[in-house]
Amino acid sequence: MKDIKKIVVGIIGCGGRIGKIHTRNIIFNFPEVKVKYACDINIEEIKNWAYGLGITKVTKNHEELLKDDEVSSVFICSPTPTHVDYIIQAANAGKDIFCEKPIDLDPEKIKKALNVIKKNNVMLQVGFMKRFDKNFMKLKELINNGEVGSLYLIKITSRDPFFPPLEYLKASGGLFLDMTCHDFDLLRYLIGNEIEEVFAIGRVFKEPRLKDFNDFDTAVINLNFRNEVLGIIENSRGTNYGYDQRIELFGSRGCITVSNPRLSQISFSKEEKIVNENPYYWFIERYTDSYINEIKYFFEVIKNNKEPIVTGLDSLKALLIGLAAKRSAEENKPIKINYKI
Amino acid sequence: MKDIKKIVVGIIGCGGRIGKIHTRNIIFNFPEVKVKYACDINIEEIKNWAYGLGITKVTKNHEELLKDDEVSSVFICSPTPTHVDYIIQAANAGKDIFCEKPIDLDPEKIKKALNVIKKNNVMLQVGFMKRFDKNFMKLKELINNGEVGSLYLIKITSRDPFFPPLEYLKASGGLFLDMTCHDFDLLRYLIGNEIEEVFAIGRVFKEPRLKDFNDFDTAVINLNFRNEVLGIIENSRGTNYGYDQRIELFGSRGCITVSNPRLSQISFSKEEKIVNENPYYWFIERYTDSYINEIKYFFEVIKNNKEPIVTGLDSLKALLIGLAAKRSAEENKPIKINYKI
Amino acid sequence: MKDIKKIVVGIIGCGGRIGKIHTRNIIFNFPEVKVKYACDINIEEIKNWAYGLGITKVTKNHEELLKDDEVSSVFICSPTPTHVDYIIQAANAGKDIFCEKPIDLDPEKIKKALNVIKKNNVMLQVGFMKRFDKNFMKLKELINNGEVGSLYLIKITSRDPFFPPLEYLKASGGLFLDMTCHDFDLLRYLIGNEIEEVFAIGRVFKEPRLKDFNDFDTAVINLNFRNEVLGIIENSRGTNYGYDQRIELFGSRGCITVSNPRLSQISFSKEEKIVNENPYYWFIERYTDSYINEIKYFFEVIKNNKEPIVTGLDSLKALLIGLAAKRSAEENKPIKINYKI
Amino acid sequence: MKDIKKIVVGIIGCGGRIGKIHTRNIIFNFPEVKVKYACDINIEEIKNWAYGLGITKVTKNHEELLKDDEVSSVFICSPTPTHVDYIIQAANAGKDIFCEKPIDLDPEKIKKALNVIKKNNVMLQVGFMKRFDKNFMKLKELINNGEVGSLYLIKITSRDPFFPPLEYLKASGGLFLDMTCHDFDLLRYLIGNEIEEVFAIGRVFKEPRLKDFNDFDTAVINLNFRNEVLGIIENSRGTNYGYDQRIELFGSRGCITVSNPRLSQISFSKEEKIVNENPYYWFIERYTDSYINEIKYFFEVIKNNKEPIVTGLDSLKALLIGLAAKRSAEENKPIKINYKI
Repeated sequence: MKDIKKIVVGIIGCGGRIGKIHTRNIIFNFPEVKVKYACDINIEEIKNWAYGLGITKVTKNHEELLKDDEVSSVFICSPTPTHVDYIIQAANAGKDIFCEKPIDLDPEKIKKALNVIKKNNVMLQVGFMKRFDKNFMKLKELINNGEVGSLYLIKITSRDPFFPPLEYLKASGGLFLDMTCHDFDLLRYLIGNEIEEVFAIGRVFKEPRLKDFNDFDTAVINLNFRNEVLGIIENSRGTNYGYDQRIELFGSRGCITVSNPRLSQISFSKEEKIVNENPYYWFIERYTDSYINEIKYFFEVIKNNKEPIVTGLDSLKALLIGLAAKRSAEENKPIKINYKI
Repeated sequence: MKDIKKIVVGIIGCGGRIGKIHTRNIIFNFPEVKVKYACDINIEEIKNWAYGLGITKVTKNHEELLKDDEVSSVFICSPTPTHVDYIIQAANAGKDIFCEKPIDLDPEKIKKALNVIKKNNVMLQVGFMKRFDKNFMKLKELINNGEVGSLYLIKITSRDPFFPPLEYLKASGGLFLDMTCHDFDLLRYLIGNEIEEVFAIGRVFKEPRLKDFNDFDTAVINLNFRNEVLGIIENSRGTNYGYDQRIELFGSRGCITVSNPRLSQISFSKEEKIVNENPYYWFIERYTDSYINEIKYFFEVIKNNKEPIVTGLDSLKALLIGLAAKRSAEENKPIKINYKI
Repeated sequence: MKDIKKIVVGIIGCGGRIGKIHTRNIIFNFPEVKVKYACDINIEEIKNWAYGLGITKVTKNHEELLKDDEVSSVFICSPTPTHVDYIIQAANAGKDIFCEKPIDLDPEKIKKALNVIKKNNVMLQVGFMKRFDKNFMKLKELINNGEVGSLYLIKITSRDPFFPPLEYLKASGGLFLDMTCHDFDLLRYLIGNEIEEVFAIGRVFKEPRLKDFNDFDTAVINLNFRNEVLGIIENSRGTNYGYDQRIELFGSRGCITVSNPRLSQISFSKEEKIVNENPYYWFIERYTDSYINEIKYFFEVIKNNKEPIVTGLDSLKALLIGLAAKRSAEENKPIKINYKI
Repeated sequence: MKDIKKIVVGIIGCGGRIGKIHTRNIIFNFPEVKVKYACDINIEEIKNWAYGLGITKVTKNHEELLKDDEVSSVFICSPTPTHVDYIIQAANAGKDIFCEKPIDLDPEKIKKALNVIKKNNVMLQVGFMKRFDKNFMKLKELINNGEVGSLYLIKITSRDPFFPPLEYLKASGGLFLDMTCHDFDLLRYLIGNEIEEVFAIGRVFKEPRLKDFNDFDTAVINLNFRNEVLGIIENSRGTNYGYDQRIELFGSRGCITVSNPRLSQISFSKEEKIVNENPYYWFIERYTDSYINEIKYFFEVIKNNKEPIVTGLDSLKALLIGLAAKRSAEENKPIKINYKI
């Protein structure tokens, strides 16, 4: 990696929610970092927002920022189909890259991008922000310290608070690539081992039209790790009680549960019941700190020439597992993951 | 104490709830003990109940059972004003005695009864069943083992689930003698030290007619123990959320909270809230096991010729503290307890 | 069913723990029921115990009690291989039967027994006591009342507190027949629908010798119900933190969790941690009330000529699901249950 | 109040922790506000820190920033004895003022400062940040909406995680003025009513040298509100389990408990116990958001010409209650608060 004097950032894709979150997080939490460019093809829609944040260069041409030698790092927050192309161009321009997940829905294209990354010796971090959640980092620490002993079984409950628009779902790659990919990645990271085989059952409970494009809104996915640890993921596209993100880990030295943080620590004993407040509404609220933590980590890796813990290869693996899960649900049998693409 | 071959019991006062509870508890949990007599002045009202339980002797004349040499022990569950007289007669007849609390509302009368107990060398246990609650016994054990270190502050929250009839309250001796007496006793027992001074504030929030006889439905009572430990009792004659019986103990090595056991371990995440079930409704449900434990203990003390942990003297002390609390609330100043009556 | 004047019981198989539990529970909780016979092939070992409980007839010959016309009901608590034979004889003698689970490990033999039951028009209740747990009964009630809405997913965590002796395991029929059968039954009951297909993964984490007889100590079992509800069972033959028996149910109107009841309601804030007490140690403690409730229910069914909610057919179905799970784990594929034996 | 175009701030007293917290919070959270001056008598110690944050004017002379017409608001974060003098000068210079608590330990001096505030028609907000805690704001909302019904009893548990240096304590004004003042203010705010009488008991459990200057490390304070609501405050200068900040409110429609937020949502079932993580370590962590919220509120009040909810008069009242509590503990009797100074 290169010798970095000062980190100067360009953001590609500021029209959506996640691009705005990252931009704001950098500006408000890392005053030593400069956000020089905000780039989006709909430049008119981001102008006021960007100037209000003190960003001086607002452009619809990403090549402008890639040519600027002062820019050391690029955040790619544009729609998924554009990721690979931007990654390749940014890598060839020698920039370090933070790219939102997933890199792509086609493993071959990801592989191609990773080769360019490698050739140019730049760094690529993928936006699996759940690895940077306070609770899950603590869990990882307990695992690494051996406090849980031999690991037997890990289970993720991951349910969104409401059903997304059908248009979004049609382009999403389906439940296993769009939603479960986060959980595949988190499980691989926590267990520190590869997933060998997957068995998935999908259901359409909430929206029958999902069947038209072979998608599901509810699923249970069983995982076998190489070291024999068992994994379970429970997904749902919608609850009526908020965002549900829990983990349970069972090992020879005990059982750890990670519960949902709640909106408050208020408990109200009333007639006929005791009422507590719900969990946070959705990922923006629940993973507020994770988004900051992952950027903090990105900048630290750059400054210290370290290898990131979450790379393009991790994104590729999550995709391969997701594709196997999809096939498993279709064929109703366990599927081995083929990592040799 | 005497040499007991087989414990044979007579119950004096079976018309009320508590007499029936004790009788049932003995019969169903201590098959080695024989309940020979059920005695109540309203004999017609208890006949069917007693025969149904296999009790052969049902009488309205307590002297009948006191004369019976086979009877070794007497349970006094009649109204408070009759306790002292029954205790004296039972003691003079050489019976061991279990008496419901309070023994009386007049310290002089209690003292007289205790003298007769002592003279006859019989045993008297008073029905402070809270000492025998599973949670509080565990707390006592942690204190005795030194796990809390030096004790600083203990707090009891003790609230009944509903407001009792005014007629009951008029004869009760008032909040501090009727309700707080349990908490005074429990605190003395847990801390293992005497209460030196009390400061009480009473309020009438729920029923204005209480003011006609200088009673309260809500109170906060501060206590100083001889060893400087601080005590707080919070009482209420009625909640809308069930029976509230909690303790918190703060010491140099930590803070213990004893929460209310709940009706179930069910937690229901719903739209806008997470709902848990309420605590047990009232003392019959909450202290079910305590009532059995205290009788078990009573029989063990008899069999092993031990000194009981809860005696007539404890009842007397709880009364003296209650009288001081009453005066404190009336005069709005801290009152020292005078134990030398 | 017959006209029952008074329920008189004979217990077959009193040498083990469960026979003694049922006997004690009947005597101490149902004084209106008479336990006339205690029967065991090792008569010397039960004599003192039985006489101590006031049982007058102690025999090693089960035919003695089957011939006694006063006996209306038989409890079969002997080892599993003897169940079918005792059931057939008791049914032919016209007795109502409570039999411990499993009836047998061979579906054909169970079927034969059920035919004899039917022919003699007697009642058979099987000892799936978990259906009678306070928490699970409340859960069933919430489901039946529609409070959870459409059901999506139910999950049982069922882990024993320690590893049983190898000798026991060898005769047990294996994890799925011995341990999971309880969970299969409980799920069928709660969901009120049949399990159609099962996918099971087994692991040997705790005792390698289990592999010698193709058994497992840890397993995850996925279930498809006919109504599309998803089921997950997690089993383990041993934790280091006590007996773990939890349920989680997710539906359109919310998510219910049933947690483990704990030994106490004490929470201790100390240096570096907050400590709560563990769950109950094992089934004897956790399901104390369930054992009483199921007998209470048995007697009610007899008195009211009702159909029991848990019959020999339920036991047969749990066995068939278990056998399918076993095959699934061996063949690593989902297996449809064949209910037409 | 004046017409504010742009809020420009000068910080007086940046040497301590709280001055640095406020400065950072303004810069990182309110980019529309300009921090123009950092002022401290030990200018050398703050220079690097201030320049690093982009503050251009670093001075040891507070008059410099008071003379600057661009400066609209002043934050006073210097030691308590300097507050009144700075307030008077800033008010006379027409600045709006945020001052850390307490304003002073002498009611007469506070009164003098408040008169100058009034004369100059500027705004003074005092740093009672607990009013701005997420949990307590929610509690206030529930009270205001009538969800608790008639209020009966409110209790604050407020314990610091460790014992402060003796030097600090000697200058602090004692437990009731230094620590309890926060709780007096919070109670007045939540109940929306004045405290009429106070009864305080103090103890020296942790450091005998406190007795040399009549201070305490542990206390229980009873409060009577004008509307008859009962209040209890429990204070301690040190626990071994972190920062303990809880509230319980009991009313006719139920009982609300506000628990401590914990470091994580991890619960670890192990051999012999279930372990949860501790509460936050101290006020910096626990009230992180409160410090930001109170500044946000301060700026809103300025922009909208509103009356602040927490003024110099609130600070004066908290002091008067604290002085009464001190006298109560010394004289061992309830003391009425004299608000007419």
